[in-house]
Amino acid sequence: VELLRVSYRVALAADAAEARAEEIAREQTVEVPRVAVRDAFVRDHVVGRVEAVGADPDQHGRSRITIAYPLETTALDPAQLLNVVFGMSSLQADVECVGLVPPPSLCAALGGPRFGIEGLRKQTGVAERALTCTAVKPMGLAPDALARMLGLFARAGLDVVKDDQGLADHAFCPFEARVRACLAEVERAAQETGRRTLYAPNLIGAPETLLQQLRVAEDLGARAVMASPMLIGLPAFAELCRRASVPVLAHPSFGGAQRFAPDVLFGTLHRLYGADAVIFVGYAGRYGVPRAACRALAENLRAPLHGLRAALPVPGGGIALDEIPEILRFYGRDSMLLVGGGLLTAKDDAELAARSRDFARRVAEASAAL
Amino acid sequence: VELLRVSYRVALAADAAEARAEEIAREQTVEVPRVAVRDAFVRDHVVGRVEAVGADPDQHGRSRITIAYPLETTALDPAQLLNVVFGMSSLQADVECVGLVPPPSLCAALGGPRFGIEGLRKQTGVAERALTCTAVKPMGLAPDALARMLGLFARAGLDVVKDDQGLADHAFCPFEARVRACLAEVERAAQETGRRTLYAPNLIGAPETLLQQLRVAEDLGARAVMASPMLIGLPAFAELCRRASVPVLAHPSFGGAQRFAPDVLFGTLHRLYGADAVIFVGYAGRYGVPRAACRALAENLRAPLHGLRAALPVPGGGIALDEIPEILRFYGRDSMLLVGGGLLTAKDDAELAARSRDFARRVAEASAAL
Repeated sequence: VELLRVSYRVALAADAAEARAEEIAREQTVEVPRVAVRDAFVRDHVVGRVEAVGADPDQHGRSRITIAYPLETTALDPAQLLNVVFGMSSLQADVECVGLVPPPSLCAALGGPRFGIEGLRKQTGVAERALTCTAVKPMGLAPDALARMLGLFARAGLDVVKDDQGLADHAFCPFEARVRACLAEVERAAQETGRRTLYAPNLIGAPETLLQQLRVAEDLGARAVMASPMLIGLPAFAELCRRASVPVLAHPSFGGAQRFAPDVLFGTLHRLYGADAVIFVGYAGRYGVPRAACRALAENLRAPLHGLRAALPVPGGGIALDEIPEILRFYGRDSMLLVGGGLLTAKDDAELAARSRDFARRVAEASAAL
Repeated sequence: VELLRVSYRVALAADAAEARAEEIAREQTVEVPRVAVRDAFVRDHVVGRVEAVGADPDQHGRSRITIAYPLETTALDPAQLLNVVFGMSSLQADVECVGLVPPPSLCAALGGPRFGIEGLRKQTGVAERALTCTAVKPMGLAPDALARMLGLFARAGLDVVKDDQGLADHAFCPFEARVRACLAEVERAAQETGRRTLYAPNLIGAPETLLQQLRVAEDLGARAVMASPMLIGLPAFAELCRRASVPVLAHPSFGGAQRFAPDVLFGTLHRLYGADAVIFVGYAGRYGVPRAACRALAENLRAPLHGLRAALPVPGGGIALDEIPEILRFYGRDSMLLVGGGLLTAKDDAELAARSRDFARRVAEASAAL
C-alpha cells in the first residue's frame, strides 16, 4: 500500500497528543468514531495510521504528529487530496498542517510543473543568473497605459512582466484588449532591444472563464500565463496547468490560511498541482514571514521529488533594491525576484525606467557574485 | 458608484488602526503605495475608501475597520470578488475578514441559491418542520453497502441522506456505481414507505470531473447533489450551481481559514455563490464554534438580501440526539440537522435503524413544540 504522509502540529503536550493523533487520523478519512469502523477493508485500507508523535521541534509545549494515509483514499484526485490532507481538521483550531510527503504515484498522477525552472529559462533566454520580475498595475489603468508601462519594463531589461493579480476582465480594462496591447508592446520592444520580455497575463474567474481566457491568451501569442490557485481553487488550477501550452505562474492571493504551513501550501502543493513558478511573500518585505519558512518553501519547490520538474521560487511582497545581493545569497540563482511597489513609487516614467534598469543590473551583478 | 463594504478586525488599537486601514484599502485594490496612484480614475473608481475605524466590539484592544470598494473592482467575477475581499490581506497575520455586505448588482450577477429553502422543502415534501440529514459512510465501503445503509435511513424516515464528503471516484467505490445503487435503493424504500428520501451524491474533483459527475448524477435521476466549495474552489462551486438542475448542498471541508469569520465565509459568501443548503460545524459538537458565530452564520443564510433565495442552514459536527430540542430552539424550523457519528456508533443495523427513527421523531416533535 502506497502511503501519503502528512504532519500536523497540535496544541497539546506529547503525552496528550497520542489520542488526538488517532482522532485526526479518523477525522481525515472515515470521519466516524472508532467503534463505527466495523469493516475490515476500511480498517486496513482507509483509516490513517499514526506513525509518530513527539514534541514539536519549533514550538514549545506543542506536539508534532505524522499520519500515514493509504494513498487510495485520495483517489488520485486533486480535490479529494486536499480533503484527506486537511479537510475536516482544518476546521479545528488546535491543528496546523505542517508537512506533506507526496508518494510517487501521486506525483505521477498530478504531474507537477510542465515547464518548471528549465522551461522558464528557455522561455526567457536567461541561462544562468537569477531572473527579474515585476507587474503592470494598478487596476484601473486602461490597456494602452498598462502596455506602455510594460514597454518601459521590457526596454529596461526585465525578464518577466506579469499582470497584477487584480487585473480581471474589467469593463475599464477588458482582458482581450489588455493582452493584445501588452503582447504587441512586447514585440515592439523586442524589435528594438533584441530581447523578448516574457509577459504573463493574469487569468481569473470560474473554470469556464479561465479556460476561455487561456485560449484567448494562447491565440494572441502569450508565452506564459499567471493565475492565483487559492482564488480559483487548487483543483481548477491543476486543470488549467494541464491544459496550458505555456508556463503557468502561481500567485498567492487569498492563500492566507495561517494554519497551513506556507512551505506545504505554496511549496509542495503548488508544485504538485503544476505551477511552473510560484510567487510568495518572502521574509524581506511587509508580510513578516520567517526566513526558515521561506527556505523550506523554496526547497520544496526545487528539491528532487519523484521526477517532478523543479518550480521557480518567486519571492515578492516588498523587496527593496538594495536588499538584492543578500536575497540572492539566500535563494540562489534558480529564483526570480519580484519587485513591484519598489519600482512603482517612482515619480515619473524616467525614474521608473531608471529603477527598472537598476533592478535588472543589480540582479545580474548579484548573480555573478554568487 | 455601487459599493462593496467589507469589514476587518486588525490587531491594533483604534488610534493606530486608521493608517493600517488605509494600507488595507490600497492592498486590496491597487496594491501599490499611495504615491504610486497617479491616475485620477484609479483614485476615484478603484482604490477602496476607509469608511469607519473603531474599537472592535468583540475583542478588547483590537479595532474594526470598514472599507467601501467600488463594485467595479470585482468585475462581478466570482474569483476576483475574493481577491478584492481578502486576497493579499489574507496573507497578513494581523487582519481578519469579519464582515461583507454584497450590493444589489453583485447579488444579481452571482445569483445565489437556485432552489434555497423553499426548493428543498419542495424536493423533500417537508412543508413546516425542521429537516433531518445524515450521511452514508465511511469511505471504504462498496456501493451496495452504502446503498443498504441509505435504505435503512430512508425507511427510518430521514429527509436527506448525503454522501460523506470523502466519497470520491475511488477504485473501491466508483462514483457512478455508488450513485446508481443509492438511487435504486431510494426508489425501493419509497415504494415501501410512500416517502422519497432525498439523496445527495458528493461531487468532487477538478472542474471537468465535477461537471461530468453532475451530468451522470442528473442522468441517473439524482434530485440533489453536494460539493465542498473550499475543496473545489468557490468559483468552481458557483459554476456548478449555475449548471445544476437540482439543489446543491455545500460541505465545509477545507474551509478552516481561521481568519475568515465563519458567518462571512459559510454564510454570506456560500449563499451568494449559490449554495441551496450549507453544512457547517455548529456550537453543539466537537469543533468548539461559539454560539454567536452560528447565529450570525444562520442569519446570513436566511436574511433578506436583494432578492436572493434563503439558503438552508445545516448544523452538524457532533450533534447528540438529546440536544435536538435546544438546537432547534436556537436555529428554528428553517434548518436541517445533520447527525452522522451519533447514528453510526450504533452496534448493529437494528440499533442504527432505531436511532435513525429516534432522530426523525425528535426533530418532528421539537419542531412542533416551537
